[in-house]
Amino acid sequence: METLKVIKIGGNIIDNDKALNEFLLKFSKIKSPKILVHGGGKLATKLAEQMKVEVKMIGGRRITNQDTLDIITMVYAGKINKNIVAKLQANKCNSIGFSGVDGNTIVSVKRPVKTIDYGFVGDVVKVNTETLEVLLNHKVTPVFCAITHDEKGLLFNTNADTIASELAIGFANKLKVELYYCFEKNGVLKNINDDNSVIEHIDNKIYKTLIKEDIIADGMLPKLNNCFHAINSNVNKVCIGKAEMLFNNNSIHTTLTK
Amino acid sequence: METLKVIKIGGNIIDNDKALNEFLLKFSKIKSPKILVHGGGKLATKLAEQMKVEVKMIGGRRITNQDTLDIITMVYAGKINKNIVAKLQANKCNSIGFSGVDGNTIVSVKRPVKTIDYGFVGDVVKVNTETLEVLLNHKVTPVFCAITHDEKGLLFNTNADTIASELAIGFANKLKVELYYCFEKNGVLKNINDDNSVIEHIDNKIYKTLIKEDIIADGMLPKLNNCFHAINSNVNKVCIGKAEMLFNNNSIHTTLTK
Repeated sequence: METLKVIKIGGNIIDNDKALNEFLLKFSKIKSPKILVHGGGKLATKLAEQMKVEVKMIGGRRITNQDTLDIITMVYAGKINKNIVAKLQANKCNSIGFSGVDGNTIVSVKRPVKTIDYGFVGDVVKVNTETLEVLLNHKVTPVFCAITHDEKGLLFNTNADTIASELAIGFANKLKVELYYCFEKNGVLKNINDDNSVIEHIDNKIYKTLIKEDIIADGMLPKLNNCFHAINSNVNKVCIGKAEMLFNNNSIHTTLTK
Repeated sequence: METLKVIKIGGNIIDNDKALNEFLLKFSKIKSPKILVHGGGKLATKLAEQMKVEVKMIGGRRITNQDTLDIITMVYAGKINKNIVAKLQANKCNSIGFSGVDGNTIVSVKRPVKTIDYGFVGDVVKVNTETLEVLLNHKVTPVFCAITHDEKGLLFNTNADTIASELAIGFANKLKVELYYCFEKNGVLKNINDDNSVIEHIDNKIYKTLIKEDIIADGMLPKLNNCFHAINSNVNKVCIGKAEMLFNNNSIHTTLTK
């Protein structure tokens, strides 16, 4: 098989109908085997408000209780996932919606309780690529939402960036794999307020320096940890930037290497 | 491939955790290739109430507006479908959740407006079995919710009985197919108040007589029309009764033949 592209999109695309349609049209034209991973955007929070389900936060982190898990399953695996697949089908891109439970593709365990019990949040322990390979060989594109399971009947909320990196790693010993994180910025920035201050290349050594210098912090830290976990697990290339980087060779972005 | 079993379950199983777990445990042990189709049960109505979305009815029929379609997509394709697949995986039955949009398996058109506009309700026009065959050959069990699409980006609500019969028909020119409708009664009853008055065998001729004699009416009429549509389209066998009929040869039920 040719190079597999694992592409993750987030709220800036999912929450904007026009941006989503444009992205999916271009995505459909990518000829190599590909997997799409989508986050949840703001819809789950909206539905929780509408249903008057309290969003419980501890130390700035959302706690996934049973009601929240139900909402996430409905919004991510239901509304968002099926609408994305419907749009891809309209673009003649044959696709199937997946969560980690489907085909037993992504197995996780409940995040261990140290100081905080995050509830139904799963840390990935195993990726089974067999069913996905069969589908990719038949030109079918898997579209993943960020839900996993424990093989014992429980569903878990899992970070979508992690889903993308774990899928990429799962294929990396069999295929050439490229992982793309599309988000609202041009890449990893030297100065968070200047979208033109993209650091175009980061390796493990530069990464350590950037952390030490406090240039990478907050939300970018877990994202880049995911990236380097992938790079250090045989994924060939990881890129971070606007979705444009996928379709335009001149579009500036950050590329990570070992 | 051996005989394919298409099995439809409804509210009496879906709405009851104990019944669902018991059914899925036995279903997991069925050795022949199989497809599960599930209805929506009462959860969608509950969620609509919780979200204060008005359920619009005309002439006793539910109208599927955009809000209702969103709820159905969330509940059927999200919560119910993923929880069923999670339980099947726990039983070591490898399965994948499907709607008609996934793999472009079930294509429909919006129900034509005569006197009533049913909204986002789709009548099936095409079933594509190719992707399903690939999965069945790899011992993966598709689990269908009752949502279809128009290949132009729209999702539609479609009767789950119809999904089951159309899937069975879609395979009938390639395989030996059996279709099972599991519901809360022992079968088609001569006397609706007597669960022991099962008519054990109905063919096209008997069916006409039963309709003429008003023995089959109301909800049973569309169900049996689906059944005979399947029987008259090369499906080998259609059975109606309690789920028990699948697991116990002596369990009384109704069998339909040409």
